[in-house]
Order: sequence, then structure tokens, then C-alpha cells
Amino acid sequence: MSELTYAFSEGNKDLREVLGGKGANLCEMTNLGLPVPQGFVISTIACRQYLTENILTDHLINEIKNRVQTLEAQTEKTFGTGTNPLLVSVRSGAKFSMPGMMDTILNLGLNDDTVQAVAAKTQNLNFAYQCYRRLIQMFGDVVFEIDIKHFNQAFETLETEKGYPAADFQKADWLDVIARYKEIFAANAGQDFPQNVYDQMLIAVEAVFKSWNNDRAKVYRQLHNIPEDLGTAVNIQRMVFGNYSETSGTGVMFTRNPVNGTAALFGEYLSKAQGEDIVSGARTPDPIADLEAKLPAIYQQLTEIATKLENHYKDMQDVEFTVEDGKLFMLQTRNGKRTPKAAVTIAYDLFQEKRISETEMILRIEPGMIDHLLHPNFQEDELANHTAIAKGLPASPGAAAGQIVFTAEDAKAATQNGKKVILLRNETSPEDIVGMTVSEAIITSHGGMTSHAAVVARGMGTCCVVGCQDLHVDEDQKVAKYNGGALYEGDLISVDGTSGKIYLGQLATTAEEISEKLNDILDICDKHARLMVRGNAETPKDIREAITKGAQGIGLARTEHMFFKPARLKAMRQLILADNDDEITDALRFIKGEQKGDFEDMYDVLLDRPGTIRLLDPPLHEFLPSDKGELKQLAAEIGKDAATVADKARALAEVNPMLGLRGVRLAVVLPQIYQMQVEAIMEAAIAVSKRKHITITPEIMIPLTGTVEEMAMAKQLCVDTATKVLADANISLNYEIGTMIENPRACIIADALAKDADFFSFGTNDLTQLTYGYSRDDAHKFLPTYLDKHLLPHDPFQVLDTQGVGTLIKMAATNGKAANKQLKVGVCGEVGGEPRSIRFLNTLPIDYVSCSPYRVPQARLICAISEIERQSQDTYAHTNA
Amino acid sequence: MSELTYAFSEGNKDLREVLGGKGANLCEMTNLGLPVPQGFVISTIACRQYLTENILTDHLINEIKNRVQTLEAQTEKTFGTGTNPLLVSVRSGAKFSMPGMMDTILNLGLNDDTVQAVAAKTQNLNFAYQCYRRLIQMFGDVVFEIDIKHFNQAFETLETEKGYPAADFQKADWLDVIARYKEIFAANAGQDFPQNVYDQMLIAVEAVFKSWNNDRAKVYRQLHNIPEDLGTAVNIQRMVFGNYSETSGTGVMFTRNPVNGTAALFGEYLSKAQGEDIVSGARTPDPIADLEAKLPAIYQQLTEIATKLENHYKDMQDVEFTVEDGKLFMLQTRNGKRTPKAAVTIAYDLFQEKRISETEMILRIEPGMIDHLLHPNFQEDELANHTAIAKGLPASPGAAAGQIVFTAEDAKAATQNGKKVILLRNETSPEDIVGMTVSEAIITSHGGMTSHAAVVARGMGTCCVVGCQDLHVDEDQKVAKYNGGALYEGDLISVDGTSGKIYLGQLATTAEEISEKLNDILDICDKHARLMVRGNAETPKDIREAITKGAQGIGLARTEHMFFKPARLKAMRQLILADNDDEITDALRFIKGEQKGDFEDMYDVLLDRPGTIRLLDPPLHEFLPSDKGELKQLAAEIGKDAATVADKARALAEVNPMLGLRGVRLAVVLPQIYQMQVEAIMEAAIAVSKRKHITITPEIMIPLTGTVEEMAMAKQLCVDTATKVLADANISLNYEIGTMIENPRACIIADALAKDADFFSFGTNDLTQLTYGYSRDDAHKFLPTYLDKHLLPHDPFQVLDTQGVGTLIKMAATNGKAANKQLKVGVCGEVGGEPRSIRFLNTLPIDYVSCSPYRVPQARLICAISEIERQSQDTYAHTNA
Repeated sequence: MSELTYAFSEGNKDLREVLGGKGANLCEMTNLGLPVPQGFVISTIACRQYLTENILTDHLINEIKNRVQTLEAQTEKTFGTGTNPLLVSVRSGAKFSMPGMMDTILNLGLNDDTVQAVAAKTQNLNFAYQCYRRLIQMFGDVVFEIDIKHFNQAFETLETEKGYPAADFQKADWLDVIARYKEIFAANAGQDFPQNVYDQMLIAVEAVFKSWNNDRAKVYRQLHNIPEDLGTAVNIQRMVFGNYSETSGTGVMFTRNPVNGTAALFGEYLSKAQGEDIVSGARTPDPIADLEAKLPAIYQQLTEIATKLENHYKDMQDVEFTVEDGKLFMLQTRNGKRTPKAAVTIAYDLFQEKRISETEMILRIEPGMIDHLLHPNFQEDELANHTAIAKGLPASPGAAAGQIVFTAEDAKAATQNGKKVILLRNETSPEDIVGMTVSEAIITSHGGMTSHAAVVARGMGTCCVVGCQDLHVDEDQKVAKYNGGALYEGDLISVDGTSGKIYLGQLATTAEEISEKLNDILDICDKHARLMVRGNAETPKDIREAITKGAQGIGLARTEHMFFKPARLKAMRQLILADNDDEITDALRFIKGEQKGDFEDMYDVLLDRPGTIRLLDPPLHEFLPSDKGELKQLAAEIGKDAATVADKARALAEVNPMLGLRGVRLAVVLPQIYQMQVEAIMEAAIAVSKRKHITITPEIMIPLTGTVEEMAMAKQLCVDTATKVLADANISLNYEIGTMIENPRACIIADALAKDADFFSFGTNDLTQLTYGYSRDDAHKFLPTYLDKHLLPHDPFQVLDTQGVGTLIKMAATNGKAANKQLKVGVCGEVGGEPRSIRFLNTLPIDYVSCSPYRVPQARLICAISEIERQSQDTYAHTNA
Repeated sequence: MSELTYAFSEGNKDLREVLGGKGANLCEMTNLGLPVPQGFVISTIACRQYLTENILTDHLINEIKNRVQTLEAQTEKTFGTGTNPLLVSVRSGAKFSMPGMMDTILNLGLNDDTVQAVAAKTQNLNFAYQCYRRLIQMFGDVVFEIDIKHFNQAFETLETEKGYPAADFQKADWLDVIARYKEIFAANAGQDFPQNVYDQMLIAVEAVFKSWNNDRAKVYRQLHNIPEDLGTAVNIQRMVFGNYSETSGTGVMFTRNPVNGTAALFGEYLSKAQGEDIVSGARTPDPIADLEAKLPAIYQQLTEIATKLENHYKDMQDVEFTVEDGKLFMLQTRNGKRTPKAAVTIAYDLFQEKRISETEMILRIEPGMIDHLLHPNFQEDELANHTAIAKGLPASPGAAAGQIVFTAEDAKAATQNGKKVILLRNETSPEDIVGMTVSEAIITSHGGMTSHAAVVARGMGTCCVVGCQDLHVDEDQKVAKYNGGALYEGDLISVDGTSGKIYLGQLATTAEEISEKLNDILDICDKHARLMVRGNAETPKDIREAITKGAQGIGLARTEHMFFKPARLKAMRQLILADNDDEITDALRFIKGEQKGDFEDMYDVLLDRPGTIRLLDPPLHEFLPSDKGELKQLAAEIGKDAATVADKARALAEVNPMLGLRGVRLAVVLPQIYQMQVEAIMEAAIAVSKRKHITITPEIMIPLTGTVEEMAMAKQLCVDTATKVLADANISLNYEIGTMIENPRACIIADALAKDADFFSFGTNDLTQLTYGYSRDDAHKFLPTYLDKHLLPHDPFQVLDTQGVGTLIKMAATNGKAANKQLKVGVCGEVGGEPRSIRFLNTLPIDYVSCSPYRVPQARLICAISEIERQSQDTYAHTNA
């Protein structure tokens, strides 16, 4: 065995570095005993030698000649001479396939003499000369870059001149064709078409080597970080002909159904044809199943080979084969591409068939597939037939159609009349929640992937497109202009939350349901994961959704989301605008009753699973109307002077609300609110514990702490309140008090904070905002440019910034756990459901992630994958230590 | 020598722990050979013993009696008997003086017998019985808490009954007084006034010991972190009487003038009086200088003692003395309190007199003094005679009076008419700069210590009060209401920037100038400091101010401050609202010409001192008018459609401008601005270098970087631009490119950023905002509550948060310097001029601080103090290692 060339029987699939992907695979199939046309591989080592020395060495040339001689002996054919001439294909094949490389030359070995021998041997003049014509054309195209239209035009001209089709050509006609082809070749290549078949072969090999350094390949390698010095291999293989006879043909086959995963052969077969004929689509192939009747022996053989290949590769295979004169030849096998649904089904079935292990099954499923499986999508052909009128950021996946409304109120009114609506606004605010809930989809012209609209929509699993700058929305006039038209209230549109595109009219969708198989797989995932997964939810509907999707509890229930029902909002406004303690007490009494009901509803679904409830977080002015007229109306409603109310609203307004009076700061300035909330939580927990005969352990979370003193103060407030509630009820119940870690300072002083906390939960949205100094509401003005110019690898609100924010989280989690061994640590920001982020978080001393209910399945999968990969790396590191 | 009692000759000033402050000092003076009335100290050890055992031990009682016998021998008097009875004072004296402790009992040793002996010996019946009366009264008051009004009322009643004043009392009258006093004593104390003089002494000593644990003392110790177990000493000292004869008297004297520091005795003397008589103010004392004529020998002796004390204590002393019958006794000496001006003068003079070293001189000056010296203040009596109508936060020190205006335009107009104005607004914005510049003082009703108004005012050295919530300002109606009245345009008010108070009318001020002595001291400070001090300034006036005040360069020149002249503002607005590249280019061409002029003016003053110029930092919308009417007018001015301009303004508006499109992000989205600025800087540097025959090295600072990629990109933009300018000018000039470190992420990745930076400058304002998540503009809503409730030790925008922000700065400076040994590191935020912050920064690998020109002198002092203290701690640590 030389290292410059390998017979197929000498290589295997692990030698991709030396043999290239295609060559290694041909070797592997050969060794499996499959009927692969014989041949040999010229290695990447030979290529690298050529790229250095710019010449094919005599040593290599001799080896190639020896290999050809062996091939002659194996096939009982002779190369360039004799009555049974050997024809071969020459193909490139690098370790990674890349565009721009010289591809394929077929029928090499034909010249003016051998073509006649082939014609005689096959008794098929037409076949032999068609092969010869193709060789000259391909050789010219691939090696000398001669445009094949020159050849095709000449061929058509000759057919016209002759007055009959090529099928009726006689030898003289073919000699005319070949003569014309040679002229074209010589004129464009500057040399004659080589009649010496070794010249043909060596020129072709050299051309493959040279093509490693063509421009397209170079650019591709740079883009994909493929090393420049790998080089390519060359595969030389005996030709087989699917177009040789009536019992010849060619096919492409998947060992299972790549669309839905069913365990049956799937593919197409075209008789009397070569591979190109299937690809070109000139003739319509038959389903592979038809072969069972037509060529039963071949079908049987294919079935056996499929099983053999799956057993060997442990995955569904995509194979190419040719039948030459009733004999089957395998030309290619590789892991088959498949739809998300098929991927899940196949992985699960292979596991059930005991062909792969649990961890292998898990690693077969890509995170993105889950998201795809769980949301409806527009049908592919519908998308192909429609042009989007606008495109924004795909904030929440799914597909939906409905009539446009421009306000949350209109959304509510229209849906009460039984309409399906799409809410279209410049941006949304917490006041719009009800309208958002009833909408099929939400579009905003401003805002980024983590704007209010995006976050809320993902939380609800509602299709959403944000930052859709193509639409110029005038909410007052209820019109949205776009390049080429305008959208008015009531217009029917379709929204693709996966692509961010907006279409006129209603496109048909394809809804997918989470399958039982997926559920089984995710349960197995949970066994392998280290991180637990919780859901971010507060309504009974969302909590139920999260639990159904496999969340082990609730990581973030946002109590402010409970304040937007009209009666509550009014009470909240009364509280904010109160002039004295009595007014505050009255408003809080009402709100407490409502909140207690909310928490009871929550615990009725959640039962004794863990659930973290965050105390009020947003700035108070978010609860007031921003419009002057509405403020006036509010003043009248609650019986206050309009000017005074306007003054208070102005006093509450903030230049940078993100950095203002919110979170635990509310407890410092107006402790009654947290007091009321803790009472409501504890009373609800007591009531449901009794009613359901369970033991609920409330987890009360204080948001936005940044100093040890404020944490201690807020904790004391909670403890005092909870103690009083328990004493009044004469009952004992455990509860936990923790804090959301959302600002850099909290991360820095985490060790001190941990001493006063039962748990930490990282709020990565705010932490990212503060670490970078990016406002989620404003960053859309520059983040796209940052991403375009590669100044940021990702939108850090979507994918955790491991270098900056991640360093703070690591520091805080590590120091927090060191200071308090009992400390539970979670991550409940948007990135808690994102694959790359979870991979990183899995390496930290963190106990769980929490995300929107719709992202829970994906998160469960990634938690398992991350941990499996981490352990295998540990093992690897250990083995190599 | 026992450890329970010390004769004055046995102790010294270093034994404060054992002898208390007062006792240690009496010992020290005794050992200096000064005429101190003899006595002894009962130590804190005895006190601690008593506090444990609750009884005076026989051992202690015996020691006290022995000490008294020694005292009898020294004074040739006898205690409680004889013709020349020994009278003593009993005083408490802990290590730290504290309120609530039992204070003083005089004349102890008098009883019904000895009082007659004293009367006989002094031939002064009145004197003797006055002393006795006082003893009973003080003993009753101090030991048994008998209200002295009982004694005083009885005394007055007797005077009335007798019908003549006490001066005319005969023995029978005095016996009546004493009998009445004894009755009162017995009735209230539940025991007779002790006639045994040792009983008097031991009861008094026990009372002093007990008073260690009274409530006021305990609270005081808790508040001031004084250990509970120190205990107090007791001083027992022979009485001397300033009220004994015509050549008797008492005085209080400073060895130098404590108001202005002049090196001459300063103080007061009252003849025929005791210390209390001076303190009570019943009689007016004479200036100490009068003694020179009256009692020349005593005056001479005092002069010599003053010199001796200053030589010994190396500081100006505040002494108390008594002259008894022509003989001088020293009762007390301590370092004298003094005005800032005197402090500076005295420290400097003591250094010149070679009594103290350079570092001793520096450590004598407190940072706050400098600020006081450099700003005018209202006269003390003026303040005493006026009541403030409102109080806000003292944002920038000084005192000013003027007529109220409510807009920057009005300020400009009024000052052009020769008026002095106070600008009163809810808050200020960059548009108000011109109006702020011409105002005597600025008041805002909103905003905190680092609001726009506060920062700009401090930068200009203009008196400023912010967050003055007592004033309800209506800028439209031009009225400000306060509790009790209203202020209208044109009303004359006075503003105290040091206290934050506002007064009606014009109060007289006292202007102080920085003295030559202070300049000399600060120059000496520079020799001892490790950190250099630069100024934050951009106008020639401010730069000159900074240099005059001793800045070694400019640490922060904010280029956006240069954009607010009308023509420039218009061009800036044209740039922001441009529809195409031509409009951008036109606007930039104009602005560049202006900026180049600015930078030339800047370098003309700065010359080749280092100067860091920050490229444009604020969000673009800050340059647009916020008012709709003004926007419309602007559109007309620059010939654009009003609706389009309104749309653009709306698109630029931000929810959280602090976290929006600003700093280096501008360079990413609109690189032309930085390009223009770098051209202007480089061209100006070239022009001034040539004109002045110097070599300017521009320091160009990129604000707000948070990723390595944006730093690299912005740096390349600057380098390319600078290279082109230099090539065009055919000149070579060094320049430096650095970045402002303002967000937590920059701190975390500082090592990577440092590789691409010549310098770092920490922007502590923004860094603090982001680390805590506090908006400078909004935090005034909760920071006061945080400070009240001790949830924060200081306002972190005024005093660096060493634990949080400081940790980030330490990390970044350390890692930055490790990655790039050449890296220069500075701090240019508000805290760069604040004492506690500088102390911390001095411990980090930082090269300079930079602050408002007016704070430069103070910063120079603190830099020296910090380094001197650090080195002495190092030495200490080293010595003890």
C-alpha cells in the first residue's frame, strides 16, 4: 500500500483526511461487500505534493499506471485498447465537499479507436458515440472551461442539417459529430483532444488538483474555516452504464422516508438512464417501490443493502445506485437529509430497534427541529407562489392570517365579533396585553427581538414579527404604508413568524403536533440532563402549557402581568395617584383580593411543583396612560383634579425608565405593595395547600437588588409579612425568599447577597442591557448594523454573551454557591431557552433554566445534549490526561 | 507606679488609653515643665475594675488616699483640715470625649470647717462661701441629679429676704445659705451632704465611673463605634482660683490666630473670674494682647509657653489658663480648631518655620478646606439673619445673588442688558448651555447631584442648587411657588451652593482668593503624589482655569459641548436630518471648520501638555428641539418638509437614551462624524505645533466601547483618517488613540481592549449608572430614601462605590496594564475630584485623575495625602511583616 494511491479495498471511512469524503465512503462500501464498481483513490497527500511542486511526479504517474493495470485485471477490460475497453470516471473528493472544485468527467478512456470497440462490444453504435461525445464535451468543459453551449449548438445544427434525430444517426453521422467536436475543442483549448487515454487521465487528475486553488473554493474555505492545506483526493472508478440496456437504470434511494420518517425504502428509479437524467428532470422517474415488480431480485438486493448500511452507519442512508444490464452497482452512500419530523421519528425508531443508544438518539436531534415541529408553518408551495410585501425580525415562530387592526381595543372588539385579527402597531406596551392575547399574530414596525411585543408574544406562543421597518405605521390614521401600497384596517394579511415575512391575503398553513415519540424522547432527555427546565408563566393557561410541555416548575411568574384587567388597572392607578394612606390602603385591599385569586388559580394548576413569583418590577408610570386625554378621563373616573393627576404623572415620568424607580426600589419607597403581594401569595398558598391536601412552598423573588442592605431590608419586609400571615392562620408552611440578579453590581457582590437569599435567578435581559449599556427598546437602531459588520457575533439578547455577561453570571453563581451551599441558582431570561446559551450555562454551577412554555421542549433537549457532550469531553480530557 | 493611679508627672500624652485625653494632656504639660496645678489621674483600668465589681476596692481607696497625701505635701495644704485646706476639682476624662458623662465638680474638700479656714486664709469670707455654695450645688447636680434651679431659686429668695446682694452677705447670711442648701440637698439626694472630704471624693469618683454607662453615653458610643469596654479616667487636681484677687483671672488663648492664621497670640482674658465666667458671657473679656500692659510678666510667660507648646505639639494650640494671685497656671492644651484659611496659613508657616515636614504640612490640610477657600461664601451674620425659603442639593459650591429668569434665552437677554441673573428651571439640557454660562447661579427643581445642571455648573465653577423640590416651577407661566409665596421673573434671590439654600433678597458675600501659600503647598503636594491630576475642560477659558489651578493636562474635552452655538447647532441638525450624502458632506464641512477652530483655540492654551479629546458621545436626538413648534420652525429654516422632520425626530427618539445610539455606536452607524472630528483635531494639532514651535501629541478618545470589534473598527477609522491628514500635510506627528471605559462589559474584556488602546479613561458616571442600573436623571426619586434608610453609604455618583464599581475599575485597570505595559490609565468621571474616591483610586494601577478645573486644587491635595498615607501604611505593614 502506498500513501499516494489506495485501491477501494484498502481504505475505510475513517480515512477522510487522506481519501476525501467520497473516496472514504466508496472504500467503506467496498469493504462492506457491497457491489461497488472497482476503482482507486489518488490521495490528498499526492495533491499536496502536486500543489508544492506544480508537477505530477514520475512516482505518482507510475503508481496510477499500476493501479489502472490492476483495474484492467479486475474488470477483464483493457484501458485504451482491445475489444473490451475500460472506461472510467474521474471525480474530485475533498475531506469537506466544497463548491468550485472540478467535479466529474465520465467515460474517460474513449478515443477514436476504443469508441469503435465499445460500439462493437455493445452492439450499440449510438450508445458508444453518445458516450464519446459526452466525454469530449465534459473534458472541454471541466478541464479547459469551454462553454458547453458551443458543443450543444453544433450538435443541434448537425441534427437539423441531417434532417433526422440523433437516435437515427449512422456511423458517418457520428464521425461528423466527433470531427466537429474536436474542432471546437481544439479552437477553444488551444490543443487537440488527447487520443492517448493516459494523457486523458493525467490531464484530468492535474486539473482536479489545480481546482483546489480556484477562487470560489478559496472563498468558500475562508468562509467556513476549512484549512488551506488539506488538498483534495481524486476518485477513479470503472464506469457502469444505467443507459446501457432495457434492464439498466439508475436510482436514488433513502433507506427510510425522509419526510415523515416511516421505516420503508423511499426513492426513485429511472430505467435506461444515467444519474444526470434524474437530476435534470427531463424524464419522470418511477417510485422505488415499482422496482419490486419490475426487477424483484434487484429490489430484494436493495432492501438487504439498506439494512446492512443502516446497521453499519447507524443512521438513515441516502444512496445512489445504477443497474447495468440487470446487475446492481452502488455508487454512493451518505447520511440522508430529512425533515424535522422525520429526524425525530427516525432517531426514535432506531433507538427502539436498538440500533442506537439513548444518548446517540438525543444527539441526532437538532434543537431547531423542535421549534419547527411545535409551530404551524405556511405550506411550501404557498410561499413559493407569493411575494412578501415586507420583512421584519422573526420574533416568535408560527404562521397566522387575519384582518389588520391598529389598536389593542380594536383587536378586542373585532375578536368579540368573531373575527381573526393581526395587531399591527409601531410598538406595544403593557396596556396592550389584552389585545395581544386575542390576536392571531402581532407585528410592530419598531423594536427588536426582545422588545415588549417580542417577549410577550413568545411567552404566549403567538406568531410575531417586530422591527418591520418596511411598514410605516400611522396608528391614528389606521394605515400602514409600504413600498408599493398601503394596508388599512380590515385588510387580510398572513404573517410568517419564522421568516419575518408579511404577505397579502391568506396563505394555507400546515399544522404539526408534538408527537408521542417526541414526548418519549424528551423524557429520556430529562434523565441525561443536569440542568432542570422551568417555564416562565403566570396565567393558568400558560402554566398548564408549560407543565404539559415538560417544565418541572415555574421559574418566573411576573406579577405585573396580572394588573392589566380594567378593574385592577384602575385600582393600581388609584394607588399610584393616592393622596393619603387611606386611599393607598383602599386600593391595595382591592388589588390584594384580586392577586390572591390569581395566585390560587396559579397554585391550582402548579400544585406543589416549585414556582418562583417575582414581586412587582416595572416603574409605576407604566401603569398610567401616556396620552393627555386619557389622563384627564382617568382623573374624572377616580374623582381627582385633572391638573394634579397630570402633575403626578409628569413627576413619575422618567428619562431612562429602565434605570429608574423599579424593582426592589419600589419596596424601599412604597413598601406596602410588596407587603400586599406577599400576603396574597402566602394566603393563596395556604388555601390551596389545604384544599388540595398538598404542601406548597412559595418562592418569593425580589427583583433588581444591587446592594446587600436593600436585599436585607426587602427580605425582612417579606419575612415579617409572611410570619404574620402564618400566625394569623395558625399554620406553618415553608417559604423561600430569593432575588433576581439583574445588574452587574449584584453579580459582583453575589457572595454577600447569597447569605441573605434562598435562591438566585439571573434576569439575563436586564443584565445584558446593563453590561453592554444597550436598551432593548432602542438597540434595534444599531444592532442590525453591528451584526452586518460583524462587530457582534449575535444579538446578545437572543444568544447569551458568554464573554461579558457570561463572565458576570459565572462569577456570581460560583461566589454565591460558595457563600451559601444551599443556594438554588436559575436563569430565567430570554436566553434560558436558547441552545448556545444553554450549552454555556450547563458548564456553570447553575441548577435550572426557565423559558417561555413554548420553548420548554427545545430547552429540555439542549440541556440533555449539553450535558452528554460535556461528559464526553470530560471523558476525552480524562483519557488524554 | 501603680496602674490604678498616676501622678501627673508619671503619665504622658501617649497614654490616652489609660489616662483619658484630658489626663494624658495634663501629664504631658507637667512633664514639659509648665505650671500645671498638681494632681493625679485615676486610670481607666480602675474604672473597668469598678464596672465589673461594682465597688471601689480597698486597694484603690488606699491608693487615692496616698495620692492625696502626696498632693498635700506638694501643695503644703491639708485635705479637709488645717488652716490651709486643699481644695480639688474632680473631672471625668475618657479616651474619646463624649456627651452624657459626668463632667466636673469644683472646690471639693470644702465642708463646714474648711470653709472657715479658707475664709480666714484668704481673708475673703464671700469667696470662701461662694466656693462652698457652688460645691454643694455641683455635687448635688452632678452626683445626685438635683436640678440646680432649686439651689438658685433658694439663693435668690434669700437675697430678696435679706434685702441686699450676696456681695454684701455677712457670715450669718452665708450660714443661712449653706443651711438652706443642705436642706435641699438632703431632701433630693436622700442623704446629707457629706462633711467627710474623702467621702466627697470617693462618691464623686464612683459617680464618674457609673456615668460611663448612662444612656446618652451608650448611644453616643454606638453611633461613633467607640468600644463599650474602654472606661473613663478621673482627674483630681488642686484648685486654682482666677477669682481670688485683683491679680487673678482666667483666659483662653490660641497660639496663633485661628481665623486667618497670623502667627501671634490670640484670645481673651477676664480678670477676677473663673473659666465659667468667660463661657457664660456674663462679662466681656479683654483681648489677650491687653495682658502685655496689665500683667507683663504673665504675658511674657504665656508667649514662651506658646512657643514651647507649638514646638512640642508641632501645631497651633488652644490653651486654657488661670492666674491666681499673680501666678500663672495652665489648665488645658489641645490642637486648636481653625478656619480653612487659618489651617492653610498655619500649616504653611509651621513648615516654613521648620517645625513640621512637607508631609506633615500636607496631612494638616483637610480636602474640604480647599473647596471652601476657592469659592465665595455668604457672610455668617447674613446667614444668621435670613431664613431660607427653599433647600435643594448643594451641587456646586459658591454664593451668588441675582434676578430670576426661567429660560436660557431670558438669561442671555437679561445679561446683555447688564443684569445679573439666576437661572431657575425644572431641569436643564444641552440647549441651555449659553444661558447657563451667563448666569450667576443655576437652580433646578428636579435632578440629582450629577444631573446635567449639576455637572455643567461644577464644570464652570458656577454656584448651583439642584433637586430643589421645595420650588414648584412653571416655566411657561414663569413662576415658582414655594411654601409661603411665589417667585416671579425679575425677583432678587440669593443662592448658597454650599448649603443648597435659597434666600429672598441679596445677601452679602465674603470672597476668598487662592493664596500664594496654598499654591506653594499644592506644588509640594505634587511632589508627593503618585496620581497626576488633569482637568475636564474644553473651552479656552476653562482650560486656562484648569492649568492655573495646577492641572497637568486635560483629561476630558467633551466635543459635544462645542456644538451648541447657533450656527453649529443648525449645521448639526442639518447633518442629522440629511436625506443624502451631499447634505451630510455639506453639513460636516461647515462643522469641521468650526471644530478645527475650536481645537486650535484649545491647543493655543494647552500647548504641548497632554489633552484627551473625546469624540462625539451623546445620542443625536439631543441636538434636536423637543418642542413640536420648534421642530416645525427648524424644518422651515433648513428647507425641509415639516412632517418628514417630525418623522425623523420621532425615529431618533429613544425610550432609554442612556442605553441607546451614542458613543462609539455613532461611529458604527455614521462614521463620517468621527472622521470629521479626527481630521479637525489632527489639522489643528499640526497648525498649532507649527505656529508655536512645539510638538503636540493629540490623544483621541473613543467613548463607550464594549466590544473588541467595535474598538478595532473605530480605531482603524481614526488611524486611517489621521494617516491621510498627515500625508496630505507631509508631516509626521505622534498621536494616541484610547477609549473611555464606561460600561461593565468593557471592564470585563479590558485585557483584550487594552491591546488596541494607547490609553483607558474610566467614565465613572456612566459606569456607575450601568453597574447599579441607576439613571442619573431619575435616581433622585429614590436615592434620598436610600440614603435616609442607610441602604447606601453615599450617593455613588458623588463618592465612588468601591465595592461594586471600584471592583470593576480595579479589574479593568489591572488586566489592561497586564495586557499592555504602555497603557496609560485615568479616571475622568465626577468622582475624579472626590477625596474618598481618590484615596481608593490611589491604590489601583491608575496614572491620573481628571476633574472640573475648580476641583483640581483639592484633587492635588488628596492625591498627595492618599499616597503619603499609603506609603506610611506600607511601611507599617513592612515593619510588622
